[in-house]
Amino acid sequence: MKHPFFKNYGPFKIIDLLNDLKSNDIENLNDDMVHDIRDLQTADKEHLTFFHSKKYHLQASNTKASYCVTLKNLAHYLPKECKPICVDNVLLIISKITSKFYPDATNDDFDNSVKKIEEFNFDNKIKHGQNVLIGENVKIGKNCSIGHNTIIEKNVIIGSDCSIGSNVIIRNTIIDNNVAILDGCIIGKKGFGFFPNKQKNQRYPHIGIVIIGENSEIGCGATIDRGSMSNTTIGKNTYLDNQIHIAHNNKIGDNCIIAGQVGFAGSSTLGNNVMIGGQAGISGHLKIGNNVQIGGGSGVIKDIPDNSKVMGYPSKDLRQFLKDNK
Amino acid sequence: MKHPFFKNYGPFKIIDLLNDLKSNDIENLNDDMVHDIRDLQTADKEHLTFFHSKKYHLQASNTKASYCVTLKNLAHYLPKECKPICVDNVLLIISKITSKFYPDATNDDFDNSVKKIEEFNFDNKIKHGQNVLIGENVKIGKNCSIGHNTIIEKNVIIGSDCSIGSNVIIRNTIIDNNVAILDGCIIGKKGFGFFPNKQKNQRYPHIGIVIIGENSEIGCGATIDRGSMSNTTIGKNTYLDNQIHIAHNNKIGDNCIIAGQVGFAGSSTLGNNVMIGGQAGISGHLKIGNNVQIGGGSGVIKDIPDNSKVMGYPSKDLRQFLKDNK
Amino acid sequence: MKHPFFKNYGPFKIIDLLNDLKSNDIENLNDDMVHDIRDLQTADKEHLTFFHSKKYHLQASNTKASYCVTLKNLAHYLPKECKPICVDNVLLIISKITSKFYPDATNDDFDNSVKKIEEFNFDNKIKHGQNVLIGENVKIGKNCSIGHNTIIEKNVIIGSDCSIGSNVIIRNTIIDNNVAILDGCIIGKKGFGFFPNKQKNQRYPHIGIVIIGENSEIGCGATIDRGSMSNTTIGKNTYLDNQIHIAHNNKIGDNCIIAGQVGFAGSSTLGNNVMIGGQAGISGHLKIGNNVQIGGGSGVIKDIPDNSKVMGYPSKDLRQFLKDNK
Repeated sequence: MKHPFFKNYGPFKIIDLLNDLKSNDIENLNDDMVHDIRDLQTADKEHLTFFHSKKYHLQASNTKASYCVTLKNLAHYLPKECKPICVDNVLLIISKITSKFYPDATNDDFDNSVKKIEEFNFDNKIKHGQNVLIGENVKIGKNCSIGHNTIIEKNVIIGSDCSIGSNVIIRNTIIDNNVAILDGCIIGKKGFGFFPNKQKNQRYPHIGIVIIGENSEIGCGATIDRGSMSNTTIGKNTYLDNQIHIAHNNKIGDNCIIAGQVGFAGSSTLGNNVMIGGQAGISGHLKIGNNVQIGGGSGVIKDIPDNSKVMGYPSKDLRQFLKDNK
Repeated sequence: MKHPFFKNYGPFKIIDLLNDLKSNDIENLNDDMVHDIRDLQTADKEHLTFFHSKKYHLQASNTKASYCVTLKNLAHYLPKECKPICVDNVLLIISKITSKFYPDATNDDFDNSVKKIEEFNFDNKIKHGQNVLIGENVKIGKNCSIGHNTIIEKNVIIGSDCSIGSNVIIRNTIIDNNVAILDGCIIGKKGFGFFPNKQKNQRYPHIGIVIIGENSEIGCGATIDRGSMSNTTIGKNTYLDNQIHIAHNNKIGDNCIIAGQVGFAGSSTLGNNVMIGGQAGISGHLKIGNNVQIGGGSGVIKDIPDNSKVMGYPSKDLRQFLKDNK
Repeated sequence: MKHPFFKNYGPFKIIDLLNDLKSNDIENLNDDMVHDIRDLQTADKEHLTFFHSKKYHLQASNTKASYCVTLKNLAHYLPKECKPICVDNVLLIISKITSKFYPDATNDDFDNSVKKIEEFNFDNKIKHGQNVLIGENVKIGKNCSIGHNTIIEKNVIIGSDCSIGSNVIIRNTIIDNNVAILDGCIIGKKGFGFFPNKQKNQRYPHIGIVIIGENSEIGCGATIDRGSMSNTTIGKNTYLDNQIHIAHNNKIGDNCIIAGQVGFAGSSTLGNNVMIGGQAGISGHLKIGNNVQIGGGSGVIKDIPDNSKVMGYPSKDLRQFLKDNK
């Protein structure tokens, strides 16, 4: 699948992509063309992928990619059709390669392609406020309203019957039908991801996008960052209260209810029908099951199985929490 | 009292209001006219009210309303002049009836009645920034200043000597004299209230407003939601720091000092002279007394009597908290 | 050093400055001129300073100021060249005196000196969005970009290669080279400081500024307040995630990484290379050392020595926290 928003500057010869890595293992590379960079599961024969943690060894052993940037001690997991490219810092190298394919995904300066909405000729009539700016490659469905001073930057698709508030900023985002985005939200900016370096941290490209399912509502002042390699997604009929922060790569299910000031650290997965009380925090890389209830103020630092009720910091079984705090 | 902002589309015949409820108990209804929907305490003879929790049985037994939507097992608390209308889901029915009386209170799309402030002829001279938008039914006292890009949507009354910052959005709000609203606040939007439904949650109307007392200050980036049936109120001389979230129906007293990033879940009452440290959270439907001090980061999940000092998650007596954490 | 932004209305005769204090100790004052108000360490011979807590007795005993507002029981710490002015409430008096020197630092109404950026003739070409407003006394380096609807109020210096997002508000701030300020930030407003008073709190002037070091990044929706007497500073190459609140007088070091929704209460010092997880809170007047790691959700209420890892509310040694919560 072609990337919906960012231009792919490939294909590149694998030898050219790697010519500044100076790794011992890249001497046998040839003139093969690599068409895209993908994760282990979605990569195909003409792609390069990466494998940096044993946690993903099952996906690695089944990847269809022809090349994989990995660690020396992980290379043996890869199928023999996939050629390992062993390096010391997988994510740093992948960041550099991603920047070659998608250089436009690194720069998050304001979008200076925008024009006033009155200058566009949308097929659908849009009820809009004053001073609304629209970027390139924006599609808006029928019966939508867009509030004052709102900026829909480039690369946004909005379904029908959506209500976008005032002072909202959106980019790199797909919004399904009947979604409400309340005032002051900032959606689709790059996530808080970079390689720490004492002189100057190195930002890495975020080629993921934000996807918001139908009938959902995003409260005032939310920030939802787009993904780095995968997407940040919010399911159908999921309601978020005010001042919520959703970092890059989180996947939130359908029919969730998330109260004010909740924060997600990144790359966690939330099932369907999850309820989260105000100010709770969800650490990174967790799996929260379906029908889970998380009490207000909780700090979740472990996976939570389906149908659990938890509370506390760190969170534990709700009954235990109430018993411990009688 | 007439609603200050939302148009009441009543009166309605009680039989027409209830004709889609299919309840067994409504067969004896007549052509009586109902003029408004009110809570148990403020309802009068020509009003309909509701009673959904035994917690309010005292108010129920003293209500002056002629009709009350309630549960079968609560109906006996009502005085004999008040006719019970028994249903399975009181709040859902009340939501539907409220929407009939006040259909304008459900839609929170941006206000497209606004015009640039220069097009108005206010009696009082207003010091204002660029790109300020003002809606219908807005009154502004003397000696006020309004910052750049600020949107005062419909239904706002601002007293004299107020300072409204830039990038502020206000609607359905009454602000007393000498109040400062700092940059980026969003005040008067509907609260996070709806009936969860797997296919599509049903939003309910918020006919309450926000009331802010004299000499108060609201910090940058605050969100203060208007009430559902009652109002969200902030007392006199109460100061809020930045990034605070006050949900619907909270009542905050006079002379309170509330530090940054504090959140209120909704429908709680705070006394006078209350001090709250940064990032504390106050659960819903609580009663916090006068002169209470709540330490930073606390999670308050129980009522707090007057003159208490608490800290912790969940919060407990401050001395106990310090002792437990030596 | 002259104040970079606020006009100093002095010098004043010491006798005139103090003529409304009615303190017993001020009868011997003469016609000496006082040129500025400074803290104990930076004050010089022609300055007045203040000393309100024994905690600062070392600095007091070495101050070069000629006059010091203090408490009767602290006066003996001062060198004999420094004349004590004993009062009951040091900070209240200092607030009044500061207001005389710097009356412009009390009013934080929107800046009505701003003009559209197109009306300026900056030496450097600036890539800017629509509806950008610039105040008086603003300098912007080369190769900067400024997003839509952003307001650079008076008294701002921006280095070269900076990226300022959209809907940003900045005043009283110095920003070094290659800094990114993301969308929706509010930087340089007065801090949450005032003298509580039952009828009407008394705001005090904030003559400090905000200083942001080179290569740093401030995430979406951050609020960074300027200092009261000293400055609020953020070091070099320090990255802040979204929705962070930094109150007045905090000093944050170099190479720090601070995750989303973290809050600082004010006047704390953070060393270099500090990492803070999401939603953590740092109380006021603390000293956090170098290379400290603070887990997400922590509540820090004590100083933390160099090289420590802590977590919890209140925070404790990380290993202890993990052991206590197994």
